Amino acid sequence: MKPDSITMTTLSGLCKQDVVCIFGTGDFGRSLGLRLLQAGYEVVYGSRDPKNSALLPKGAKVMTHEEAAQAARVIFVAVHREHYDFLSSLSLALEGKVLVDISNNLRRGLYPQSNAEYLSTLVPGAVVVKAFNTISAWALQSGGLDANRQVLICGNNPDAKQAVVDIAHSLGLTALDRGSLRAASELEDIPLQLFPMWRLPFRIAVGLLAVFFIYVLIQDVIYKWVMEKKDISFRIMVSLANKAFPMVALVMLALCYLPGIMAAFLQLYNGTKYRRFPDWLDRWMLCRKQLGLLALAFAFLHVLYTFAIPIRYYVYHRRVTFTSTIIKENKTYEFENIMAWRSDSYLAMGMLGFALFVLLGITSLPSVSNSLNWREFSCIQSKLGHLTLLLCTAHAFLYGWDKFLKPASYKWWMPPGYMVSLVVPCVVLVLKLFLITPCMDRTITRIRQGWERSAGMPHKEEKSSQPLIL
Amino acid sequence: MKPDSITMTTLSGLCKQDVVCIFGTGDFGRSLGLRLLQAGYEVVYGSRDPKNSALLPKGAKVMTHEEAAQAARVIFVAVHREHYDFLSSLSLALEGKVLVDISNNLRRGLYPQSNAEYLSTLVPGAVVVKAFNTISAWALQSGGLDANRQVLICGNNPDAKQAVVDIAHSLGLTALDRGSLRAASELEDIPLQLFPMWRLPFRIAVGLLAVFFIYVLIQDVIYKWVMEKKDISFRIMVSLANKAFPMVALVMLALCYLPGIMAAFLQLYNGTKYRRFPDWLDRWMLCRKQLGLLALAFAFLHVLYTFAIPIRYYVYHRRVTFTSTIIKENKTYEFENIMAWRSDSYLAMGMLGFALFVLLGITSLPSVSNSLNWREFSCIQSKLGHLTLLLCTAHAFLYGWDKFLKPASYKWWMPPGYMVSLVVPCVVLVLKLFLITPCMDRTITRIRQGWERSAGMPHKEEKSSQPLIL
Amino acid sequence: MKPDSITMTTLSGLCKQDVVCIFGTGDFGRSLGLRLLQAGYEVVYGSRDPKNSALLPKGAKVMTHEEAAQAARVIFVAVHREHYDFLSSLSLALEGKVLVDISNNLRRGLYPQSNAEYLSTLVPGAVVVKAFNTISAWALQSGGLDANRQVLICGNNPDAKQAVVDIAHSLGLTALDRGSLRAASELEDIPLQLFPMWRLPFRIAVGLLAVFFIYVLIQDVIYKWVMEKKDISFRIMVSLANKAFPMVALVMLALCYLPGIMAAFLQLYNGTKYRRFPDWLDRWMLCRKQLGLLALAFAFLHVLYTFAIPIRYYVYHRRVTFTSTIIKENKTYEFENIMAWRSDSYLAMGMLGFALFVLLGITSLPSVSNSLNWREFSCIQSKLGHLTLLLCTAHAFLYGWDKFLKPASYKWWMPPGYMVSLVVPCVVLVLKLFLITPCMDRTITRIRQGWERSAGMPHKEEKSSQPLIL
Repeated sequence: MKPDSITMTTLSGLCKQDVVCIFGTGDFGRSLGLRLLQAGYEVVYGSRDPKNSALLPKGAKVMTHEEAAQAARVIFVAVHREHYDFLSSLSLALEGKVLVDISNNLRRGLYPQSNAEYLSTLVPGAVVVKAFNTISAWALQSGGLDANRQVLICGNNPDAKQAVVDIAHSLGLTALDRGSLRAASELEDIPLQLFPMWRLPFRIAVGLLAVFFIYVLIQDVIYKWVMEKKDISFRIMVSLANKAFPMVALVMLALCYLPGIMAAFLQLYNGTKYRRFPDWLDRWMLCRKQLGLLALAFAFLHVLYTFAIPIRYYVYHRRVTFTSTIIKENKTYEFENIMAWRSDSYLAMGMLGFALFVLLGITSLPSVSNSLNWREFSCIQSKLGHLTLLLCTAHAFLYGWDKFLKPASYKWWMPPGYMVSLVVPCVVLVLKLFLITPCMDRTITRIRQGWERSAGMPHKEEKSSQPLIL
Repeated sequence: MKPDSITMTTLSGLCKQDVVCIFGTGDFGRSLGLRLLQAGYEVVYGSRDPKNSALLPKGAKVMTHEEAAQAARVIFVAVHREHYDFLSSLSLALEGKVLVDISNNLRRGLYPQSNAEYLSTLVPGAVVVKAFNTISAWALQSGGLDANRQVLICGNNPDAKQAVVDIAHSLGLTALDRGSLRAASELEDIPLQLFPMWRLPFRIAVGLLAVFFIYVLIQDVIYKWVMEKKDISFRIMVSLANKAFPMVALVMLALCYLPGIMAAFLQLYNGTKYRRFPDWLDRWMLCRKQLGLLALAFAFLHVLYTFAIPIRYYVYHRRVTFTSTIIKENKTYEFENIMAWRSDSYLAMGMLGFALFVLLGITSLPSVSNSLNWREFSCIQSKLGHLTLLLCTAHAFLYGWDKFLKPASYKWWMPPGYMVSLVVPCVVLVLKLFLITPCMDRTITRIRQGWERSAGMPHKEEKSSQPLIL
Repeated sequence: MKPDSITMTTLSGLCKQDVVCIFGTGDFGRSLGLRLLQAGYEVVYGSRDPKNSALLPKGAKVMTHEEAAQAARVIFVAVHREHYDFLSSLSLALEGKVLVDISNNLRRGLYPQSNAEYLSTLVPGAVVVKAFNTISAWALQSGGLDANRQVLICGNNPDAKQAVVDIAHSLGLTALDRGSLRAASELEDIPLQLFPMWRLPFRIAVGLLAVFFIYVLIQDVIYKWVMEKKDISFRIMVSLANKAFPMVALVMLALCYLPGIMAAFLQLYNGTKYRRFPDWLDRWMLCRKQLGLLALAFAFLHVLYTFAIPIRYYVYHRRVTFTSTIIKENKTYEFENIMAWRSDSYLAMGMLGFALFVLLGITSLPSVSNSLNWREFSCIQSKLGHLTLLLCTAHAFLYGWDKFLKPASYKWWMPPGYMVSLVVPCVVLVLKLFLITPCMDRTITRIRQGWERSAGMPHKEEKSSQPLIL
């Protein structure tokens, strides 16, 4: 290859006939080589040890590192960071080459410097690009259908980045430029993440579940044991769980809509939307989706547990006993119309609320929310969301009915569990009701369109139809 | 920047080092700037009022509009249409620049001219491209994971469009060219749409629900009240709803397959597929997916309501009363084998039908249907769809059993509700049965492969394996 | 167009103003033309018969094949293979043109040579590219929202392929290069595939269902008939189905995790991961997702059938009879605490297991698994998966309780069905338990990071954080 042709390649992007070199014959190196060959590239492996070449894809050549490096402009370094040192001995052959660092670490903060930056200090003559580390060997093998197709790329040299972007595109992947090589450590952390957005909501869910479960345990099992020396501990498995689940679901659904309402009040108070929210509110607002989905999971468990009621031995036993008592004592079991209304309304509210909740869950699937425009998404998530909360709150109120009037419900001065879980939803609904009064609604809408109270005139530069807060 | 270098930029597309200018410091302007900075662009804000710059992303410069315009070739106009007039005073600085109009309106038909066309008349020396208006600030901030990633672009100058396409790609978005600037008004309507495809099916669902609910209300509650002066209005909440829901679900599922069958008959009658269907049929066929999903929603409610039957107070009361009557009157409750068969078959048909229905729903999720080829998709939606309809119709027939023979079922000469809902499904199934007889099936297949009865010979140019009608 | 400008087009890729020619006016030709026009291309149809032009999109021109071919560089051949012969007469006009073969066949193996290769022998002077055959006319019409957007491309000439890639991109589709024209027959088979990955799992499911159903049929209905001459055949519809469904679900869930465990043992035995697995194991591991989803379908049916128990006539009759017997014989129905614990635990295990199973199902939706990184995906699929299996196995054990001790359970020496279905899950769980003992776990982890027992030292080149086996 003459210098002239190299310049041309640099200008016009890597063309398909080009040779790509891969250092390393592990899973990732092999999968990548196979896909490159399928896409029409020539693939050259650089290996210290050609004995593993039996597993390499057909059509690829295996050479020494030095020879392989000279054959290609782009070199994928599919080697662990601990073994990078051999690269410094190749610095002559790597001069001017594009080194693609695809490495990941076993855990965060193992090294002070990102692998890619370390590589660029080892081989200062080469141009290092960090890429492909978020793509798994599995994703490459299965044709990218089942896994993340987005290649995140960073590096200091635009031409080198473009060459890697071209390769990504010809493998059927999309590329996202994340800036200079300083972003490498951020990219290297991504594959090590374990549901970072789910952590806070998950902890809230576990905390609430523990608190509510102990609460109903005290009221139910322990109270009975202490007061009547009667062991009803079998109720733990289903009855108590089915009390705690809906409580958690209801509170978390309300927590999902509370921050939006607090943000609206803050904006009303500030008279502008151009003031940052406090950090905790920002963080809360970013995990609303996760809060909602966890609430849905608990609601789903509640539905399962409720439908299983009539097949429980305990319930069956109670029903048989009740019937025989009535017959033996020759009582009549009077039909109460009000009781029928209450029981049916309570069930209907719950089931309609759950159906809407499932709808909310479906629309938060990435592929579904992708196909909605902003107005549709916000209509479903905000309007249907508040309607769901309203139905579920009504469900809880109808469940309780007049229990709150009966002193027997307050065991050891503790209000029954369902009342505790109603506090947050009621607060949210009352505040929301206040916000949608015509007068408040008008002010909020104006503020979100850029109006500021202090200035007294609408703010000039704003794109209006996309409020950030649902 | 010398004119020479501008020409180069025009030829080779915008390169990453280029400067991008943003007019407007609202939500969208800020989010866009942040993502551009991350992708390696230099970002310059043009602002009338630098005091809001506190909220701008780090690394961006803020200048006057004039200075900012001179620094970049591509300028995003993130300003409301009402404030566009200041741009005409900058026409000298904007000469030859690419102005990207990202604006949306608050509602449709607010202005006779689209915002982008208005902009191009205001600044005739600049090249206006409409783009990014369907992308929300939120989508830009969250890295495009949770929202629509497709940038729709239109404009009259291909080079300018290409520059915007390049920017979209480097932000990890996909671009779709929608033609000349005349398409701008269409693009500006998209973010204002509210489920346009769902409107007709939703109205049909609400209409059917209302009609069926009133029908069973008259037959059940009102009839009882008029004839026996007995108030059973509590049945409204669950019993009546659970009669109306399955009726709506069954009729809508049938309506989902009726247009395909009508189209087949039309093609048989015309003897060709090269004649347009009437408009109403075209529109009906386009909303089949929505009809089916709404039917699934009602079927889901029916399942919930049915499983809740044994925990209803009314049902519990009736069962206790029934048992005590039997015992007190010393009757034996004879076990009828035929009744057991019927009850179990009825439930089994319903549950198998529902399971298949859920499967149909899952395969219509965008990400699932994307991973199917045409043959797989049509196999599931057509074959499994008709099987689902068959099972659900059998479920309804087994529910009714011999009721249609008993005069008591016809209250006030009205047939029971389930019979009304069986009309459309039966018509669909009978017609479908007719169409899949070998003789009809062969003709239909030939017509769909391009054969025409009039010509008597196969039509030459056709791609056969992808019939448009399921 | 001067020869000079043609050369430029070849170098810089097809520019938007270019003319695209389509041979064939069928569904696909029309849909493609419409989308090309929307994307700003000029479209020219070549047709033998201009009478059908009434259905062609507005703005397209219709010419003879020869004229149309001369007007464009890229020609889409939307004609059946049987009618390709007319193209050989146009070979002069087609010299140097890019012919895009989009054809599909009615079934596999119809011709010895792929359509695209046949085309290139017919018109040797043209450059043939196979593309777009996996995209349906429907997908093109509906804007690619509801269908597969990936265009698979193969061909021998990189420039020609690039021209087609550019067209695909400007239609908002993604392109995936699949190599040389030899891959065409593979591409032509794709639209004819009918769930190739689902075939084996589906057969396993049907086979297991048949075996288990007959097994419980013999034990239940036939045993009763032979021994007591009592007809309980009505139990087939629900009771027996609800015994067979959970058995199939449990065994298939276990089969889904068995190959991963076998692979781990093989790696332990080999002392390296650099030896290929036997073919059957590879194939088994590739269909684990499908096995799991079918298991979920059966679990879903089991849940539906179980919740329907209390509304069955048979169950209602048995309960009434039981209650009256107790009352008439003046027995007391003693409450057994242990029975309440068992019944509730059994239900709770099942419901928690099912909820986790649904979660597993949701995360295997393409759009959800796409948004997870490898570590998150493997955490859910492996850890939660084994937990699900554990819960479901416990559910089955609690269901059986002490049945296995009672000789009456072994009808005709056959163990009860649930015991049969517990064999595979128990094996999987015991082996998994063995693998996660600290000592085994450490060895496995080291092997998967590239360590080899024979060499005694870690293998140098490996990317560690992405094990291929869950």
